[in-house]
Amino acid sequence: MTILILNGPNLNLTGLREPEVYGVRTFDDLLVSLNRLYPMIEFVYFQSNIEGELIDKLHEFGFSALGIILNAGAYTHTSIAIGDAVKAIRSPVIEVHLSNVYAREEFRHHSFITPNAKGYLCGFGLYGYLLAAESLVKGFNLPDTTL
Amino acid sequence: MTILILNGPNLNLTGLREPEVYGVRTFDDLLVSLNRLYPMIEFVYFQSNIEGELIDKLHEFGFSALGIILNAGAYTHTSIAIGDAVKAIRSPVIEVHLSNVYAREEFRHHSFITPNAKGYLCGFGLYGYLLAAESLVKGFNLPDTTL
Amino acid sequence: MTILILNGPNLNLTGLREPEVYGVRTFDDLLVSLNRLYPMIEFVYFQSNIEGELIDKLHEFGFSALGIILNAGAYTHTSIAIGDAVKAIRSPVIEVHLSNVYAREEFRHHSFITPNAKGYLCGFGLYGYLLAAESLVKGFNLPDTTL
Amino acid sequence: MTILILNGPNLNLTGLREPEVYGVRTFDDLLVSLNRLYPMIEFVYFQSNIEGELIDKLHEFGFSALGIILNAGAYTHTSIAIGDAVKAIRSPVIEVHLSNVYAREEFRHHSFITPNAKGYLCGFGLYGYLLAAESLVKGFNLPDTTL
Amino acid sequence: MTILILNGPNLNLTGLREPEVYGVRTFDDLLVSLNRLYPMIEFVYFQSNIEGELIDKLHEFGFSALGIILNAGAYTHTSIAIGDAVKAIRSPVIEVHLSNVYAREEFRHHSFITPNAKGYLCGFGLYGYLLAAESLVKGFNLPDTTL
Amino acid sequence: MTILILNGPNLNLTGLREPEVYGVRTFDDLLVSLNRLYPMIEFVYFQSNIEGELIDKLHEFGFSALGIILNAGAYTHTSIAIGDAVKAIRSPVIEVHLSNVYAREEFRHHSFITPNAKGYLCGFGLYGYLLAAESLVKGFNLPDTTL
Amino acid sequence: MTILILNGPNLNLTGLREPEVYGVRTFDDLLVSLNRLYPMIEFVYFQSNIEGELIDKLHEFGFSALGIILNAGAYTHTSIAIGDAVKAIRSPVIEVHLSNVYAREEFRHHSFITPNAKGYLCGFGLYGYLLAAESLVKGFNLPDTTL
Amino acid sequence: MTILILNGPNLNLTGLREPEVYGVRTFDDLLVSLNRLYPMIEFVYFQSNIEGELIDKLHEFGFSALGIILNAGAYTHTSIAIGDAVKAIRSPVIEVHLSNVYAREEFRHHSFITPNAKGYLCGFGLYGYLLAAESLVKGFNLPDTTL
Amino acid sequence: MTILILNGPNLNLTGLREPEVYGVRTFDDLLVSLNRLYPMIEFVYFQSNIEGELIDKLHEFGFSALGIILNAGAYTHTSIAIGDAVKAIRSPVIEVHLSNVYAREEFRHHSFITPNAKGYLCGFGLYGYLLAAESLVKGFNLPDTTL
Amino acid sequence: MTILILNGPNLNLTGLREPEVYGVRTFDDLLVSLNRLYPMIEFVYFQSNIEGELIDKLHEFGFSALGIILNAGAYTHTSIAIGDAVKAIRSPVIEVHLSNVYAREEFRHHSFITPNAKGYLCGFGLYGYLLAAESLVKGFNLPDTTL
Amino acid sequence: MTILILNGPNLNLTGLREPEVYGVRTFDDLLVSLNRLYPMIEFVYFQSNIEGELIDKLHEFGFSALGIILNAGAYTHTSIAIGDAVKAIRSPVIEVHLSNVYAREEFRHHSFITPNAKGYLCGFGLYGYLLAAESLVKGFNLPDTTL
Amino acid sequence: MTILILNGPNLNLTGLREPEVYGVRTFDDLLVSLNRLYPMIEFVYFQSNIEGELIDKLHEFGFSALGIILNAGAYTHTSIAIGDAVKAIRSPVIEVHLSNVYAREEFRHHSFITPNAKGYLCGFGLYGYLLAAESLVKGFNLPDTTL
Repeated sequence: MTILILNGPNLNLTGLREPEVYGVRTFDDLLVSLNRLYPMIEFVYFQSNIEGELIDKLHEFGFSALGIILNAGAYTHTSIAIGDAVKAIRSPVIEVHLSNVYAREEFRHHSFITPNAKGYLCGFGLYGYLLAAESLVKGFNLPDTTL
Repeated sequence: MTILILNGPNLNLTGLREPEVYGVRTFDDLLVSLNRLYPMIEFVYFQSNIEGELIDKLHEFGFSALGIILNAGAYTHTSIAIGDAVKAIRSPVIEVHLSNVYAREEFRHHSFITPNAKGYLCGFGLYGYLLAAESLVKGFNLPDTTL
Repeated sequence: MTILILNGPNLNLTGLREPEVYGVRTFDDLLVSLNRLYPMIEFVYFQSNIEGELIDKLHEFGFSALGIILNAGAYTHTSIAIGDAVKAIRSPVIEVHLSNVYAREEFRHHSFITPNAKGYLCGFGLYGYLLAAESLVKGFNLPDTTL
Repeated sequence: MTILILNGPNLNLTGLREPEVYGVRTFDDLLVSLNRLYPMIEFVYFQSNIEGELIDKLHEFGFSALGIILNAGAYTHTSIAIGDAVKAIRSPVIEVHLSNVYAREEFRHHSFITPNAKGYLCGFGLYGYLLAAESLVKGFNLPDTTL
Repeated sequence: MTILILNGPNLNLTGLREPEVYGVRTFDDLLVSLNRLYPMIEFVYFQSNIEGELIDKLHEFGFSALGIILNAGAYTHTSIAIGDAVKAIRSPVIEVHLSNVYAREEFRHHSFITPNAKGYLCGFGLYGYLLAAESLVKGFNLPDTTL
Repeated sequence: MTILILNGPNLNLTGLREPEVYGVRTFDDLLVSLNRLYPMIEFVYFQSNIEGELIDKLHEFGFSALGIILNAGAYTHTSIAIGDAVKAIRSPVIEVHLSNVYAREEFRHHSFITPNAKGYLCGFGLYGYLLAAESLVKGFNLPDTTL
Repeated sequence: MTILILNGPNLNLTGLREPEVYGVRTFDDLLVSLNRLYPMIEFVYFQSNIEGELIDKLHEFGFSALGIILNAGAYTHTSIAIGDAVKAIRSPVIEVHLSNVYAREEFRHHSFITPNAKGYLCGFGLYGYLLAAESLVKGFNLPDTTL
Repeated sequence: MTILILNGPNLNLTGLREPEVYGVRTFDDLLVSLNRLYPMIEFVYFQSNIEGELIDKLHEFGFSALGIILNAGAYTHTSIAIGDAVKAIRSPVIEVHLSNVYAREEFRHHSFITPNAKGYLCGFGLYGYLLAAESLVKGFNLPDTTL
Repeated sequence: MTILILNGPNLNLTGLREPEVYGVRTFDDLLVSLNRLYPMIEFVYFQSNIEGELIDKLHEFGFSALGIILNAGAYTHTSIAIGDAVKAIRSPVIEVHLSNVYAREEFRHHSFITPNAKGYLCGFGLYGYLLAAESLVKGFNLPDTTL
Repeated sequence: MTILILNGPNLNLTGLREPEVYGVRTFDDLLVSLNRLYPMIEFVYFQSNIEGELIDKLHEFGFSALGIILNAGAYTHTSIAIGDAVKAIRSPVIEVHLSNVYAREEFRHHSFITPNAKGYLCGFGLYGYLLAAESLVKGFNLPDTTL
Repeated sequence: MTILILNGPNLNLTGLREPEVYGVRTFDDLLVSLNRLYPMIEFVYFQSNIEGELIDKLHEFGFSALGIILNAGAYTHTSIAIGDAVKAIRSPVIEVHLSNVYAREEFRHHSFITPNAKGYLCGFGLYGYLLAAESLVKGFNLPDTTL
Repeated sequence: MTILILNGPNLNLTGLREPEVYGVRTFDDLLVSLNRLYPMIEFVYFQSNIEGELIDKLHEFGFSALGIILNAGAYTHTSIAIGDAVKAIRSPVIEVHLSNVYAREEFRHHSFITPNAKGYLCGFGLYGYLLAAESLVKGFNLPDTTL
């Protein structure tokens, strides 16, 4: 079973760019954690600065993956096309942002992706990807407390 | 150590009201799960339909609790006063919504709370409260992968 | 069978406040009329200046009453929470305003309640409550003219 | 004494058009009911799809009728001219809509007529015309409860 | 089988008015072409500067015609009433404009008709009516290429 | 030589309607004055409450009259169709309003006609029509002061 | 008796600046005409590019002049201060513009002066000043046609 | 004679919350000063985080107090209901804010209270309450300088 | 002679994605039809999810092709760059959309391409491409009816 | 020590202009009061209708005066330049308005000055200048109650 | 040959006011540099806080100077009158701002001058005036590289 | 030392596309000039129609180049992603546009890049690139005039 982690523009600079906003740890650190926590899941990581390549990946994985963790970066706020792709596919998509986008400029408050996403989280830094992965693996359900 | 779960208007009807949107499980189920998962944490649950009582609780717990999980319901979109209370206190606040509010009416897309919250998540149903609690207990950090 | 008459902020001043807008008669006069006209109905009257107490009453009566006549006063224009409560309950709600709110300030022209109400009327003064009660008692149907 | 019932565009299709919104009963049914309930009143019914003909009728009856029940249909939202006519005449006008216009598209939420109307009601179907007629006949006053 | 060609205000001046925008050919030329191309179809042509007369025609033909080609001229941008009529009838409506309305003033960019139309085309001049007629006759389907 | 005086909705009530805004004198008084002042001009007076009939008159006179004095009443603010007709014809149009429309509701501040009119004047009451007529007769030119 | 002609910024360039918009004749020509037509009136002409000097002049003449013809140029659209001065004085003010400002940029469509002016006219070129002067001299009344 | 000092949400934290914005002194300090300065006035202090309780107090004191000093905190910007209460009562209300609200977020720039208040002041910290009290005691008049 | 059919993001999923909106037939079906109908025309088909590749193709074909049929998908609503490319080239562009975009979300109602296109059509499904091709081949002219 | 009282456009008419809004007392009365109350302070009074002269005065006094009491009149709402001058200088500025500007037209609700002012007050008439002067003399501090 | 350097409000404080935004060097330094670099050009420097005096200077130099370097300061964003003056004259105008106005408040992002200017530059500090002067002297052309 | 010249969509057509707006000279001409003027600088030229490739180049050069001259073409107005990249890198960026974008459509007036750029210039044609290069080479400082 596969989970795609799909990152958009400028996220290749994470750890380097504005570390006071985005932190110093990198997506390599994240992948080490994820592989340890969920060894039965194949995590595929893809980053691109090109909007259309993100769409290509959503099409490629969106009919077979267990789920997709999508941080479309700045395209979140401008790309109807990525939002349409999320709507067109079948795998559940969890939208993630490193920073609390609502504490930043107003043009970052709108997302064309969220209405079509299964869940949304922001402000947790890289840790938010862990929460997203956990929700996909656990199927969004409370543990059965009747046992 | 205490975590306050603070619910706003109409959330007392959860399980009853629009079950196709909010699901059939209740906050009692959630508390059973939380107490099992984190027995060392005291979970305090409070719900009110009165805006000012939510503010009172934020003041009461906001200088001592490990964290606060806040779902202010419809007051999310209209209450500058609750947003100010979140800003005035010291405990980190995780804002949670059961449904994907961005897939609903536009007046639910704005929150006066988020800019002052530590993290935000929506669309995960009751399970989202689990993720929020986990993030507070774990301190928002990736596990140390150097061990 | 019960009909709840639920009044919001400042309506306790009716008869006193801006009589050229709201008239000099009071809700006591109205209740006398209603009890005479419909002796088989129990009319419960409740007024509060506290938004959350209005929500509490909607929850309390909203699953059993024949209907609810709601004048949420100024909360009409700002309270998504009351609007949500009206949507969450099962009894039909008739929204009433004493004055013609559309002849007043623009911020009184929007209502978060109306989209979830069964019917709406304004500008008839206290008499409008009579019309609302009548519609609930008669079930909104034209009299059968085939008899 | 005369009451004019004045219907605007597309209301000639009532009973035919979108029956799930507007119901299956027709204005003929309504007139039968009205004539039975208030035999001393002459009810004049007029429908036109032409904005200016509605204005002509308002001018014709607006200085002598006991009252006018006006459903201007879609012209409600666009016609300053009809609103001006309502303001220019002397007979009280009750604005009526079959459906709850606030539960429909946003462009139906504004009315150029309401600020100049005596009273407004919507969402009661054909029954709303009965309420409007009653209010005109009864003079908008609570019954005298001192008798 | 009948197709109604329904033209709104000022279109009676076509060939005369702003020929650099609307061209010099007239609707008479168009009708000659249509009758030659589709001799089995009865083309009814009606033009009026009166909004309500356009609604009358939509009602008259809208429950029996094969289709309606509607150019409501300037009423396109202001008439909720015509839009409602298009929605109320059963024959498919193709909305046509001679000029590319999106290359003109911004108030011509919105149409109350399009959301209820089957298809929309603009910028093709009189030729656009031919395309609209063809689509109605052919039933909007690709030719069967399996033959 | 002909000058058309074209009045829109509700102007048939001038002298009767809101006399504190529109005055008590009537268009009959105006016509007597105009005929005396300019006996060589034929003044044609036409009033209609129907938008399309105003358009018809603009078409009828707009290619031969010396000028047109147009007070489209409330249609001024909503009728793109009349604005288009003014643009389509050749005779100069002077737009006139009795009252100072800019001292009234904001929805009366916009006109679809003015951009296509030769001149515009408001606030002069019936006297404004005299000024408009004078400008058409004199050709908008300063008297030759070199004589 | 005095009439003040008060011109605002850039109007000193009239005859020079954009002659296709503003014409080639100058205010000297205008004054010659006015003095010939109304020899009993003293016409005072003042132009300034400084907003405050226009206000000073309105104060100086506004309590004694028969009337003021004001073309505040671009300050029309931005100067609440001049609008307030017009409101504060007692002499009637006629607002004049050379060009049809509604056929130009949208920011020229709003005027802070008009709501406080007696009358408004635009699009008549220098000739508009003649019309304004005439209306002040004649007192805005139709000639008495009963004589 | 009584002056009510009425404080809204989060003002119970004054001295604690964001001291760089609101200062470190408390309302206890203020009351000591006021009692010393105006010993003949009874100062009643009330704070609540509940909107409706503020309305209750306005009703209770609003028909007898010499004046009311109201800082509705964040409800200032959202509560039409409090604004209506201020309008409904007879005692003059002075609206006060500790900080300069116009130097903060835009949503703090609008107040539903000010249009109904006698006077407004902000930015003076606790000292502003002293100015407000002084104005109420002195009756808003310049001292008589003719003595 | 060449006609370029240029499709934007997510259109590679046509037949698969939301078939109730976009239908089940594919662009392969369309091309078979086009080649049969117009064998003398070379139809070049290109689809990309990358905005810049669509621009590259417009540059490549835009100075030689008989015409271009462009469905830019979601880029229609956000891409000034594609709109500029359409303006920069010489071949006529027909903008096509499968669905009636005006019956969908409001952000799909604006197009940066249409003002620079020769013609526009939407709502006809794949059949709309046939109409667009026909108009290019026939040169947008009514057949000569004088023969 | 100097306090500058700086008044903007039309304030020279105070006592004369709209006395029901601005009262009948004048700034001469105010200065007599101020000189009596604070004989150790030099009060400099300056009024101008010219925006730039107000800026000149702010520059002249803004680096040495104890404080500036500024009522920029209508320039308050339009002058970024005066706002910049207030920001550029060092003396504290108290913004004062005679009337309650928030009870008047909406365009008077915005101020470019307030964000840069130390304090703001309105609605107190001339008495407000006294309060402003007192706050400057007293240094905005509560009296020391520990003595 | 003359180049006018024209500075608007508050620019007389350059070197003094907010040096972290505007730097510590002054326009005297600039003029020394300009005179050294282009000894054949006469540089005229004029600064005023009065909007109308800037217009006067534009008129005075605008028909003879080689060019004008204009920094209208805050009037940039509010003065249609200065924008009109720039349009009315013949000398090319280069608009300059010391700071990057787009990195500051939103009300500084709009300019009434730029649409009429030859070129625009901001963010270069005093050095930007050098670039503007160079462009005027060099005539905006690339050096001839064919030599 | 390197300066990157980075051009966005459609700028590959410069010299060809709308020559009356963009001129007939090409970027080859510019590079010849730059290399002659500043032989010690390596000028790297890159153009792409793909948004993401522009971001890639900003990342590649943004941590080492002396500066970047960026004309993002139409992406200027829509690309938050490029704006973020400019903010994330360390080399100063000068934003350049060939035409005066403020004299064109309103959607070209906003830039997501400028707030993060060092300097901005437009309207100078290809010559603007020369000015930008000069400012980078000279370090934005006035020449030292004390020598």
